[in-house]
Amino acid sequence: MSSFSDRLVEAVRRCCNPVLVGLDPRWESLPESIRSGVSSRPADRADAFRRFCFEVIDVVAGRVPAVKPQAAFFEQLGPAGFAALGEVVAYAKDRGLLVILDGKRNDIGSTAAAYADGWLGHSPDFPWRADALTVSPYLGDDSLRPFFETAQQRSAGVFVLVKTSNPGGGMFQDLLIEGRPLYCYVADYVEQQAKATRGAEGYGLVGAVVGATYPEQLAQLRQHMPHAWILIPGYGSLGGTARDCAAGFDDRGLGALVNNSRGIIFAYERKPYCKRFDPLQWQRAVEAATDDMIAQLREHTSAVALCGPAEK
Amino acid sequence: MSSFSDRLVEAVRRCCNPVLVGLDPRWESLPESIRSGVSSRPADRADAFRRFCFEVIDVVAGRVPAVKPQAAFFEQLGPAGFAALGEVVAYAKDRGLLVILDGKRNDIGSTAAAYADGWLGHSPDFPWRADALTVSPYLGDDSLRPFFETAQQRSAGVFVLVKTSNPGGGMFQDLLIEGRPLYCYVADYVEQQAKATRGAEGYGLVGAVVGATYPEQLAQLRQHMPHAWILIPGYGSLGGTARDCAAGFDDRGLGALVNNSRGIIFAYERKPYCKRFDPLQWQRAVEAATDDMIAQLREHTSAVALCGPAEK
Repeated sequence: MSSFSDRLVEAVRRCCNPVLVGLDPRWESLPESIRSGVSSRPADRADAFRRFCFEVIDVVAGRVPAVKPQAAFFEQLGPAGFAALGEVVAYAKDRGLLVILDGKRNDIGSTAAAYADGWLGHSPDFPWRADALTVSPYLGDDSLRPFFETAQQRSAGVFVLVKTSNPGGGMFQDLLIEGRPLYCYVADYVEQQAKATRGAEGYGLVGAVVGATYPEQLAQLRQHMPHAWILIPGYGSLGGTARDCAAGFDDRGLGALVNNSRGIIFAYERKPYCKRFDPLQWQRAVEAATDDMIAQLREHTSAVALCGPAEK
Repeated sequence: MSSFSDRLVEAVRRCCNPVLVGLDPRWESLPESIRSGVSSRPADRADAFRRFCFEVIDVVAGRVPAVKPQAAFFEQLGPAGFAALGEVVAYAKDRGLLVILDGKRNDIGSTAAAYADGWLGHSPDFPWRADALTVSPYLGDDSLRPFFETAQQRSAGVFVLVKTSNPGGGMFQDLLIEGRPLYCYVADYVEQQAKATRGAEGYGLVGAVVGATYPEQLAQLRQHMPHAWILIPGYGSLGGTARDCAAGFDDRGLGALVNNSRGIIFAYERKPYCKRFDPLQWQRAVEAATDDMIAQLREHTSAVALCGPAEK
C-alpha cells in the first residue's frame, strides 16, 4: 500500500477538491427522521448515530476525499457508541473514503503505542482502524514518536495539533519563547518529522492541525512546514471562509484538507439550506452544502489547480 | 453527593494511604493463567482484560483509595475493549474504589462537553462513567472549561497534565516564557480553577498531573497549587521513589495520589516478587507490592500523618 500522504494526494486529485467532512453526530441536531422513535438508551442512540453517519457517507462518498469522525460524540454513548464508531469507520473505508479519526489522543511510550495500534492501519480483523489520527503534542517527542512509528509501519498518517481554531487556543499556544510562539516550536517538530517521512508527492506521514480562523498564521505555517499536510478546521460554523483557507495550499492545490462538520451534516437546519430543503430531505442539504463548499474552495484557493482551469 | 475532592480526602483517610493503582492491562505482561487458551480475537482478549482487572480490583479494594484504568489498552481492542473498560469502571466503583479514568482527553467546546458527559459522573444508566478524568491542556481555557463544568455538576474531578513523568515531557513543557517554563503557566491556571472550586477540605475539583521523576518541580508545584490534588505518575517502573514523592503532600498527608501501574499489577514478574511468588499466585504478588508501596510512602512521606504516628 502506498503511503498515507500519497493516498491523500491521489484521493484529493480524484475528487478534485480538498473537502473533509466531519462526522460529529450531536444528538440535538440530528434530523427528526433519524431521531423519531429512538429511546434515550445509549444503545438506541448509538444506532441512530450509525444510521445518520451511514447516510451522510452515502451522500459524500465519491464527492470528497475523506471524512473525519469525531470520537467524542460516540464515546459519549459508552460501549454502544464505540461500537457504532467502529462501524462508521469501516463503512466509510468500504465506500472508498479516507478516514481521519479525530481523537486528539496522547500519552507516553507503550501507552501511546497502544492508542496507535488501536486506531491506525488496515486489517480485516480490526475494521475500526482509521487511515489517520489526530494527536495532541503537550507530552513531547516520546509521546508522539510511537504514533509515527505505527503509522509508518501501516501506511497511515498522524495530524498533530499545532494552532487550533478555538478562541482560547492562544492561551498556551501563543505564549512567546524567545520571540516565537509555542505553536511554532510544535510546527518545527512536525516539519522535521514530515520531511523525514516524505513520499513520492513530497508530503510526509506527519501533518498539522491549523485553524482557518487564523489565516495569517496559516500562511506562515504553510511556508514553515512544506512537507506537512495541514488539516484546517474552523471553516463555516467557526467563522473561517474559503479565502481564509487559501494560504494553506501549495501551488498544485495540494497540502491542505479543509474540514466542515456541522455546516455540511446539519445543513438542513441552517441558512440557506433550511429554506431550500424540507427536513425530510436533509440528505439533499448535505449534498448541496458539500457542492457549495467545493465551489467556494475552487473559486478562492489554488484547489482549482486540481482539475485545471477548463473545468472551473 | 459530596465533592470529588472531599470524597478523595475521605477515601485516602479511610485507607490510610494515597496509593492509586493503575490498571494497564498490557497483553504481553498478563499472567499465563489469564492468557491461557485465549485466542487473538479482540473480543476474547477484551474478556481476558476484564477478568484480569476484576481480580486486581478484588485484591486492592479496601486497601487503596482509587484505581486508574488506562483507556488506551482497552481501546486497542476496539469496541470489545471499550465494553470491557466500561465493566471494569463499574466493577471498581461497586467495590468502593474511586475511579480516575486515564484518557488524557482534549477537544474544544461542545466536543469537549461530549467527552466530559461520556466519562464523568454517576448514573445507573451510564455505569462506565468515572469519578475523574485526566485531560491535556494544549487547546487552552475553552477546551478545559467544559470538563470542569460537567465535573462540577456531577461531583466529579479533572486532572490536567502539568509536568509529566516521561523523559521527553520537557520538549514543550520546559520551554521558558519570560523566565518561567510553560508548565508553570498551566499550573497557574489549574490553581486558579482549583481554588475557585475548593471543597470543605480545601481542595478543588481540578487537579494536576506532576511526575515523580521531577521531585524539585513537584515541590515547587505543590507550593504553587495549594488547592489542587496532584496525581503523581512515574513511581517504580519510571524511576520515581517514595522519597521523590514526599514533596507532593501537604502536612496532613493529603493532596497527592501516587500511581503505580506495572509495579503492582505485574509484580509477579518483577523483583523481588517473582522470587517469592509462583506466577499462579500473581494476585498475592499484587497484594504484597501494594502493601510494600503503602509502607514506603508511610515511611518517607507525610502520608504517615493519615493514621497517626501510633500506627506507623
